[in-house]
Amino acid sequence: MTKIGIVGLGLIGGSLGLDLRASGLEIFGVSRNPKTCEIAMELEAVNHADVSLEILSQTEIIFICTPIDKIIPTVERLTLELNLNPETIITDVGSVKAPIVERCSQLWPNFVGGHPMAGTAEQGIYAAQKNLFVNRPYVLTSVETTPEKSVEKLREIVQKLGALLYDQCSPIEHDQAVAWISHLPVMVSASLIDACIHESDSNIQELAQKLASSGFRDTSRVGGGNPELGLMMAHYNREALLVSLSQYRQSLEQVIDLIENENWERLEEFLEKTQQLRGRFCS
Amino acid sequence: MTKIGIVGLGLIGGSLGLDLRASGLEIFGVSRNPKTCEIAMELEAVNHADVSLEILSQTEIIFICTPIDKIIPTVERLTLELNLNPETIITDVGSVKAPIVERCSQLWPNFVGGHPMAGTAEQGIYAAQKNLFVNRPYVLTSVETTPEKSVEKLREIVQKLGALLYDQCSPIEHDQAVAWISHLPVMVSASLIDACIHESDSNIQELAQKLASSGFRDTSRVGGGNPELGLMMAHYNREALLVSLSQYRQSLEQVIDLIENENWERLEEFLEKTQQLRGRFCS
Repeated sequence: MTKIGIVGLGLIGGSLGLDLRASGLEIFGVSRNPKTCEIAMELEAVNHADVSLEILSQTEIIFICTPIDKIIPTVERLTLELNLNPETIITDVGSVKAPIVERCSQLWPNFVGGHPMAGTAEQGIYAAQKNLFVNRPYVLTSVETTPEKSVEKLREIVQKLGALLYDQCSPIEHDQAVAWISHLPVMVSASLIDACIHESDSNIQELAQKLASSGFRDTSRVGGGNPELGLMMAHYNREALLVSLSQYRQSLEQVIDLIENENWERLEEFLEKTQQLRGRFCS
Repeated sequence: MTKIGIVGLGLIGGSLGLDLRASGLEIFGVSRNPKTCEIAMELEAVNHADVSLEILSQTEIIFICTPIDKIIPTVERLTLELNLNPETIITDVGSVKAPIVERCSQLWPNFVGGHPMAGTAEQGIYAAQKNLFVNRPYVLTSVETTPEKSVEKLREIVQKLGALLYDQCSPIEHDQAVAWISHLPVMVSASLIDACIHESDSNIQELAQKLASSGFRDTSRVGGGNPELGLMMAHYNREALLVSLSQYRQSLEQVIDLIENENWERLEEFLEKTQQLRGRFCS
């Protein structure tokens, strides 16, 4: 029975455990919190759980499901403190790939960067659920040194999860793509909330708050999300995000310019184009 | 039985008709399209329907539910072509109030600007539904010359619809409030779509389209909406929208600046603030 390690038993780690254990693999879970280990056992997200990485020494594939800033330190500890078989694959689930893959591939040649794009607004082991990854993208980002047979083993796992595999992009391509469709929206949306709270006339401010409905709710949703996640996106994907923000600024300036100059014909063309092309991203 | 006129039998006009007819009022509907008149009769959104405004000559309250650019021309025709009783109240449902209220109050002193903030993604008479306005804001914007007893009659209608009445704001206050929470989000969201389609690397562009999920979908939704609506917002609410866009540009520049300068502490504060304050708009 293939032995799978999972470090970090939150929403993603816990959900991976639930599906992989149910598919017959033997799951070894690690959390810093003994209570989380207990819960993961009760929920049958793991077969074994411990606060120590030691429990992973015999595993064949290890998923690092910690917050993004703990991925590299965890791989450092795994490779220094355990006497892992060189065949052991280490993979992660971080939402940014280039800086992680670069460093972790140095630490462990058998590292494969991964990014399952699934989630809920909830966090923690209690948010874990079966089939979280079904029909959701799961990106694997190989680099030149990545062993093909390790990627192949992870493809099998992705298939077990029912996820949609994307394995034809580099870490840098992945990071720019998610900057556009995931990290840029957070900053655009947060800026909307910030702008609205700057209305200083208290009558108008109060009325705006009362009248806000689905349009404001949807456009502001990701900007009102977990601040730590937003910070991590900006921190770890800074360059790609700045590229996207710079283009966004230009698009916004164009809209402002068209409205200032009452160029209604071109504004209509602009809005027709955005209506039409949104479908490429949201089918 | 109070006689109610409705000009424009689309989503809003049709839904008003359904509720008000069901509450026992006698509804006279006008559409330029004879087929729409027929359908409105079949759906029981009206008691009488015609392509001519003549049918409204005996009504006591007339709702103008046309597209926003047809509101003033319709009030002009009503007041010129029909010999309306001066007691007849004319009201509209346009999403911008100042330019409409200013002109229509000159044309007809018994005009009361209104804005029921309800809708669906659908348009037209077939989209009309009962209870569309229940627990949705319905703004009435009086000006100095607006007869109080007319406002009072409309309050009763708003109550029949089960809507939430807001009648303590001027047309200008209304327009700035909706600029913030309704019109600004459209431009912010359309700019996001426009920015994303500027990625010129075809691998990254394709990947971005494939990976886009709920975050992108929600943030881009109103920017991918009806271009005519977006254009009308910008056209009719230009000044208030430019005030909001100017503040939005500042908020965005602040975010870009914090990321460029790797000022993570202040970016986290910024995102904590937007997370916290969003709740004032979305309860």
